[in-house]
Amino acid sequence: MLEELKKQVYEANMELPRRGLVTYTWGNVSGIDRAAGLFVIKPSGVDYDVLTPDDMVVIDLEGNRVEGKYKPSSDTATHLELYKAYPEIGGVVHTHSPWATSWAQTGRGIPCYGTTHADYMYGEIPCARNLTAEEIEEAYEKNTGLVIIETLKEKNINPMHVPAILCSNHGPFTWGKDAADAVHNSVVLEEVAKMAAWTEMIRPGAPVAPQCMQDKHFLRKHGPNAYYGQ
Amino acid sequence: MLEELKKQVYEANMELPRRGLVTYTWGNVSGIDRAAGLFVIKPSGVDYDVLTPDDMVVIDLEGNRVEGKYKPSSDTATHLELYKAYPEIGGVVHTHSPWATSWAQTGRGIPCYGTTHADYMYGEIPCARNLTAEEIEEAYEKNTGLVIIETLKEKNINPMHVPAILCSNHGPFTWGKDAADAVHNSVVLEEVAKMAAWTEMIRPGAPVAPQCMQDKHFLRKHGPNAYYGQ
Amino acid sequence: MLEELKKQVYEANMELPRRGLVTYTWGNVSGIDRAAGLFVIKPSGVDYDVLTPDDMVVIDLEGNRVEGKYKPSSDTATHLELYKAYPEIGGVVHTHSPWATSWAQTGRGIPCYGTTHADYMYGEIPCARNLTAEEIEEAYEKNTGLVIIETLKEKNINPMHVPAILCSNHGPFTWGKDAADAVHNSVVLEEVAKMAAWTEMIRPGAPVAPQCMQDKHFLRKHGPNAYYGQ
Amino acid sequence: MLEELKKQVYEANMELPRRGLVTYTWGNVSGIDRAAGLFVIKPSGVDYDVLTPDDMVVIDLEGNRVEGKYKPSSDTATHLELYKAYPEIGGVVHTHSPWATSWAQTGRGIPCYGTTHADYMYGEIPCARNLTAEEIEEAYEKNTGLVIIETLKEKNINPMHVPAILCSNHGPFTWGKDAADAVHNSVVLEEVAKMAAWTEMIRPGAPVAPQCMQDKHFLRKHGPNAYYGQ
Repeated sequence: MLEELKKQVYEANMELPRRGLVTYTWGNVSGIDRAAGLFVIKPSGVDYDVLTPDDMVVIDLEGNRVEGKYKPSSDTATHLELYKAYPEIGGVVHTHSPWATSWAQTGRGIPCYGTTHADYMYGEIPCARNLTAEEIEEAYEKNTGLVIIETLKEKNINPMHVPAILCSNHGPFTWGKDAADAVHNSVVLEEVAKMAAWTEMIRPGAPVAPQCMQDKHFLRKHGPNAYYGQ
Repeated sequence: MLEELKKQVYEANMELPRRGLVTYTWGNVSGIDRAAGLFVIKPSGVDYDVLTPDDMVVIDLEGNRVEGKYKPSSDTATHLELYKAYPEIGGVVHTHSPWATSWAQTGRGIPCYGTTHADYMYGEIPCARNLTAEEIEEAYEKNTGLVIIETLKEKNINPMHVPAILCSNHGPFTWGKDAADAVHNSVVLEEVAKMAAWTEMIRPGAPVAPQCMQDKHFLRKHGPNAYYGQ
Repeated sequence: MLEELKKQVYEANMELPRRGLVTYTWGNVSGIDRAAGLFVIKPSGVDYDVLTPDDMVVIDLEGNRVEGKYKPSSDTATHLELYKAYPEIGGVVHTHSPWATSWAQTGRGIPCYGTTHADYMYGEIPCARNLTAEEIEEAYEKNTGLVIIETLKEKNINPMHVPAILCSNHGPFTWGKDAADAVHNSVVLEEVAKMAAWTEMIRPGAPVAPQCMQDKHFLRKHGPNAYYGQ
Repeated sequence: MLEELKKQVYEANMELPRRGLVTYTWGNVSGIDRAAGLFVIKPSGVDYDVLTPDDMVVIDLEGNRVEGKYKPSSDTATHLELYKAYPEIGGVVHTHSPWATSWAQTGRGIPCYGTTHADYMYGEIPCARNLTAEEIEEAYEKNTGLVIIETLKEKNINPMHVPAILCSNHGPFTWGKDAADAVHNSVVLEEVAKMAAWTEMIRPGAPVAPQCMQDKHFLRKHGPNAYYGQ
């Protein structure tokens, strides 16, 4: 069942430790088959070095486990909400990558200080508010998804233009057109988060990049007039 | 004698340089056999790349060397005090891992800024006071163990809920249910120490994570209602 | 066509990920054959691990693609302006290497704090101003080259004495006598940028290195009285 | 001639890039045969990956090249002064390792913040003053050696108790009982320099380690009552 997608999601998961984004099992990637209405996700707490494509867990859009010998990632309900809210999303990633997580721990969004950021993400990478005690108590992982959606809506952000968010005192989520693309965005986010911290260290109070430059770089890579790449 | 335990303790020691937690011989791991009343520890100042399971030293709970051709780690008396005070501890680690050691050098405990910390350690990771000149003179390594115990007692900390401590101007000790688990906690501590420093760098005066979030994440992984993993 | 140069430029491009200076495809190297009036550059957005010498693109000094199945790097027009302005330049590099990019994101030049810097670059490494909205709109990559040239001219800098520049809110360009030498200067720049940031972190307001020391080290390696090396 | 020493010095040089202490050719190690009155040093500006034991250069205590097809390191005169001043020194190292060099670029000595430092170096690691324009002009490398000796004398430091120094706006020199030991001290210095910077970042104004603790750790490893190791 969904053998090709399982393989893609497995490969995307394995990319996380290769890129230095996870310690132990602190990350998970999923990918969705929109036609089937099913997504595939890493099992909870299984070591990357024993993981196989067959260990991936298949979930439907009501959150039921449809196939898989393991329990799915404890963050499955967050992935589910994102898939339900945004039909254009094909893959979701959560990590505790250290620079993005450090920003999340401050509760601050990441300002756009340069073209590395602007090439991939249009404007500030937002930081979602903390959940209330009630939201945590009621349905922690589901409400994490809902607060991400609330934040994007409030800030009027197109999720394909800013494919990353920080959850306060927790860590980042990213997404993309498929699982591999979502992981790509996690790598970019970590690099951007690191350089934004260093920018502020070298020059406290540094201004963000001029808007015309942010526009230029984002549109060089996105939209009908993009001319980067082949 | 204790061949299986020696092998486990050897493997746990070898994990330290693989994880980037030790330079040269700056670390030691031990593991205990509670039934036998004996623990096994790395010899003092022997290079990791010539170490074998047979080089491990066997110590009884009076601190006597029961077996082993080498002198045990110079920190053996610290391990011994921790084993005597806490029957639930199965392994102990000491390193000079750079981020945890930098915090120890400041004399500050590590505030809980996020879920990476809360997943493993409940509340601030404490920093034990400096020993007095008399305590150093009298029995340095033994008193290092006693000041750890004093700190946990004063702060009313269950050692299995906060399996790590910093010793002022020195470095960290961690522990766990066995030697491998204690090393796991050393890896987590270093990651948490790094991200706490970066959090304060990005936002001086950042508040700690909300208590309800700390509770949620700790209990997701610990206690009767834990639901992380398989 | 230009097989030898293509091989050199290919090798110089491959050195970037080996030295940790690029993530994904965030860099490009070119090299010029002055007699032929042609330069060779990396194609746009092609992964380093599938790149071959034959994929390199040949460009003339009017900016036309003379040979190559791929579109050239999107930064080709910047390379072109540098080759036209400075006949002594044989290779050009652009990266988003994290420390140099963080300085670029602050808009500050890198002060000369020591001999590592002075051995290769004489005085501050400048930071070019931001382009105006009009300059971006009109011809972004070409004007990036022109603002580099404007900066060197205004500061009266010999490009062979300071073979590196930062572009505000963007990243670094370096050059050299050939493609390999330009990459060498990118490695040096990243190391110098890192240590300058750490110098200011350890001692805010640190003064630059004494002029006599900067002179000594630069002249130990450059000019008629150089005595470093064989 | 001195085949064994050449091999030791070659091995000690090769350890520098393995330990991440040098970029390109930015380092050199020498070792001395006191009976022969000769020392062996790395040639100037030769890449580490083509270096062989036979490339090492033999120098006498007047600074003459006695054997070797290459010119010796440009820092040879500094090594020479150290060997002449301190008969107990058997090896000398110079690097531009990034953390130690960043401290050197600030002109500050490295305070003793903890036991990692105290285990190897007794008290602050000093920073030598800048040379005057006249001293640079007259004999730069020789005077670098003399200012190191002047600094140790003024501060009443036994070079075997603090086997490392920073040269202002330049970088570190270390020494030891032989070439390998001097490299060991370079590795320790870099680790200590890094953690001292992080200590000040986490807690600006942090006090140094208590004197009784510095004494204890230094004497645990040095002198007649040392008890670390086998």
